[in-house]
Amino acid sequence: WRRHVLQTARLLLPEIREALRGRRFRELKEVLSRMWPYDVVEVLEGLSPQEAVILFRLLPKDLAAHVFSELEPDLQERLLLSFTDQEVHEILEELDPDDRTELLEEMPANVVRRLLKTLSPEERRQVTAILQYPESSAGRLMSPELVEAHAHERVRDVIKKLIAKAQVFPEEVLHEVYVIDRERRLLGSVSLVRLLRASWDTPVGELVEREPIAVSAWDDQEVAARLIQKYDLLALPVVDREGRLVGVITVDDVLDVLEEETAEDFLRFAAVADPEDRYFSLSVRERIRKRLPWLAGLALLANVSSFVLHRYEWLLEQMVVLAVFIPILNGTAGNTGSQAASFVIRALATGELDPESPREILKAWLRELLTAFLGLSLPLAGVVALTTWIRTGNLLFVGVTASTMMVVVLLANTIGFFLPVLAKRLGLDPASISAPLNATLNDALTLLLYFSIAHALLSRLGGFPGGVP
Amino acid sequence: WRRHVLQTARLLLPEIREALRGRRFRELKEVLSRMWPYDVVEVLEGLSPQEAVILFRLLPKDLAAHVFSELEPDLQERLLLSFTDQEVHEILEELDPDDRTELLEEMPANVVRRLLKTLSPEERRQVTAILQYPESSAGRLMSPELVEAHAHERVRDVIKKLIAKAQVFPEEVLHEVYVIDRERRLLGSVSLVRLLRASWDTPVGELVEREPIAVSAWDDQEVAARLIQKYDLLALPVVDREGRLVGVITVDDVLDVLEEETAEDFLRFAAVADPEDRYFSLSVRERIRKRLPWLAGLALLANVSSFVLHRYEWLLEQMVVLAVFIPILNGTAGNTGSQAASFVIRALATGELDPESPREILKAWLRELLTAFLGLSLPLAGVVALTTWIRTGNLLFVGVTASTMMVVVLLANTIGFFLPVLAKRLGLDPASISAPLNATLNDALTLLLYFSIAHALLSRLGGFPGGVP
Repeated sequence: WRRHVLQTARLLLPEIREALRGRRFRELKEVLSRMWPYDVVEVLEGLSPQEAVILFRLLPKDLAAHVFSELEPDLQERLLLSFTDQEVHEILEELDPDDRTELLEEMPANVVRRLLKTLSPEERRQVTAILQYPESSAGRLMSPELVEAHAHERVRDVIKKLIAKAQVFPEEVLHEVYVIDRERRLLGSVSLVRLLRASWDTPVGELVEREPIAVSAWDDQEVAARLIQKYDLLALPVVDREGRLVGVITVDDVLDVLEEETAEDFLRFAAVADPEDRYFSLSVRERIRKRLPWLAGLALLANVSSFVLHRYEWLLEQMVVLAVFIPILNGTAGNTGSQAASFVIRALATGELDPESPREILKAWLRELLTAFLGLSLPLAGVVALTTWIRTGNLLFVGVTASTMMVVVLLANTIGFFLPVLAKRLGLDPASISAPLNATLNDALTLLLYFSIAHALLSRLGGFPGGVP
Repeated sequence: WRRHVLQTARLLLPEIREALRGRRFRELKEVLSRMWPYDVVEVLEGLSPQEAVILFRLLPKDLAAHVFSELEPDLQERLLLSFTDQEVHEILEELDPDDRTELLEEMPANVVRRLLKTLSPEERRQVTAILQYPESSAGRLMSPELVEAHAHERVRDVIKKLIAKAQVFPEEVLHEVYVIDRERRLLGSVSLVRLLRASWDTPVGELVEREPIAVSAWDDQEVAARLIQKYDLLALPVVDREGRLVGVITVDDVLDVLEEETAEDFLRFAAVADPEDRYFSLSVRERIRKRLPWLAGLALLANVSSFVLHRYEWLLEQMVVLAVFIPILNGTAGNTGSQAASFVIRALATGELDPESPREILKAWLRELLTAFLGLSLPLAGVVALTTWIRTGNLLFVGVTASTMMVVVLLANTIGFFLPVLAKRLGLDPASISAPLNATLNDALTLLLYFSIAHALLSRLGGFPGGVP
């Protein structure tokens, strides 16, 4: 047992490079054929494109297809360009149908044309059928290769059928047999293990326990992922609008979807437009495109705060010490607003909070408000009161900062709570209510409240050094 | 085919409640026995505790155990308290070993004592063995139930063994057979599908293709999850310090781990201490405990900014208009710092960036710097220059704000990049470098730079209205 750490392939890289330079191809072939596909992927991505093209040709055919499907699109494109039409055909042939779809989605138009040319009419029909489903729909993620049976078929015959299919289908679609009626409508499913447990003369229909869980090919991939996660499925059947079985989505495809969705929320929340999970492979230009628009937009939005400050310049001029407490008030409002928003965004993503149910939203918000009032706004007002007292020794100032803090914490929590819910109801991604957007809005609001309270309290209670203005 | 939406169970709730009130138990039993475990979980959690206790007793035994394992800890505790010792024993008996461990981890000490009492000596030994592994280690997640074979055993006999085990083991551990030597050291694995494909007289050892991928029981659960994700495994073997096979982790357990880890990063990044994925089931007190310490700490840290402002009160007094541009400068620095930090946190989490490789870090940072300089700091300086010009019409002020912007964007990106890397190297969670922490640090830095630049430029170039101070 060799301990597999996450960087396995990186450790192999120097040796493999050395062997490539020494043209020790037989030895390399031997080593590669015993490697896990993902380790080969990491090795290929660590090599120069020229080296990668040479190494790829040393892979046994079935491994080559598996490895190819997991490469970065730019390396896939480079490899395809270096292949003859015959080689392209062989790779495409071996690819699982869902990986073939993904490849066609990611390649530029001229490469796609070349790829489609090498497919058989049957395969081309299959690909076109899948590409009719919208991007990031369940239909795009599914494989049309699955094992189906009619309810009256005996366990013995179904197992035979399954073993025959096992020669051509990828392993992950073979753990479940789908029971259908004459119109290909899904009646239920029976696992391979359940088949093996049952007596060999039973009709498979009798082994179906529950009504099936399925997803429409038009549903979003995240719906499929959540269903697989919730019901602990290895595979989820996909049906068309008439309820006919058209494919299956396996748990391995969904592992990435779930993490990507959460990671997308995470990056979007940090004000990254159009986030992707891979970052370091992005070009500088791509990075700028993802980051600058938000930053520039928020900088312009910050002008609202500038405007508030500008309006109260006369007050600041009279009492510059007011400026000293702006960072703590602005900062706290932004921070607690992000906290509230991040919770709601997660709860919306996991389905814990239903945006369509006003009762549930109200209930959640009341708890939020209670938390904010008792637990956050009172103690934080205490913190700012203390620092104000230490710095100015003036009770009036203490009153101004502490009461501003109380009000803005409550407001920031309310805004942080409702903006994502509102975004969701408008059909936007709740995570686009990013922490920076929250902070920028809260800044303007905090300043407005702070100066209004300062003006009101100080002029009424005579705190102005030079008399009431 | 009934279309399964994510709220299925909520729709059933009113009818089930009605049936409970009407004491139509036979009908309920019938309905429940055909439901998916997770739907029953949602129904139970939607009922009052009294109703839940009654409904739970109507479940068939195997479904009851499965449902029980997925309930929230407080409902589990309540159910356990309502059971007789005999009933407790029956539930524990039926639970999968990994679920049994999880239950014991989550129950309070007095309940755990009662549970352990009802276990057989053999089961108690198994539980104690698993609890020796540290919290959130792979060992805690694994199930010791698995199918193993020696290399010389024939496919026919292994399949027979597997079918026998299929009566008692949970389905998810039956898709792979582990080949071991005399010392129980792992030699490799063979999938059930591969067994079915092979000729029945082959020794299973010949079907092993690659050296096995395994995880140590002491490794973190995230390592196990990443391996399963990377290598598209259905199950990952777990070995002890001597390399002996002790258990297996299945993909369904890992789906939640991966999403939770990413969600944890997300919440921690929004300055939530000790984040959990479920939020709305937390008590108000718990929420405060998770949120207040960070907020109060950051509010105190914001005093550094106050101190800077206090030091430059004389400058502000002379030129209150300087205050007008603080929000846009502070805001932009905080925003771009969070962007940089969020990227690095993701790259560290996925393993894209290796924190131990200075070369890789330097390379990544240089690209970051190039992005920040060309793509962010120049255009953002343009934005602030424009707004300054519109508001003041004074070229000197334009110089002050634009040059401050350029410097702080570069600095904020550098800090946002290096703090998470540093945290990781110190053994802390990189995501604890939250967006608010970034913003608070950047605030102080921005103010210091802004006033220094303003002082230097304005006094040198004579921009002070009342002469150089």
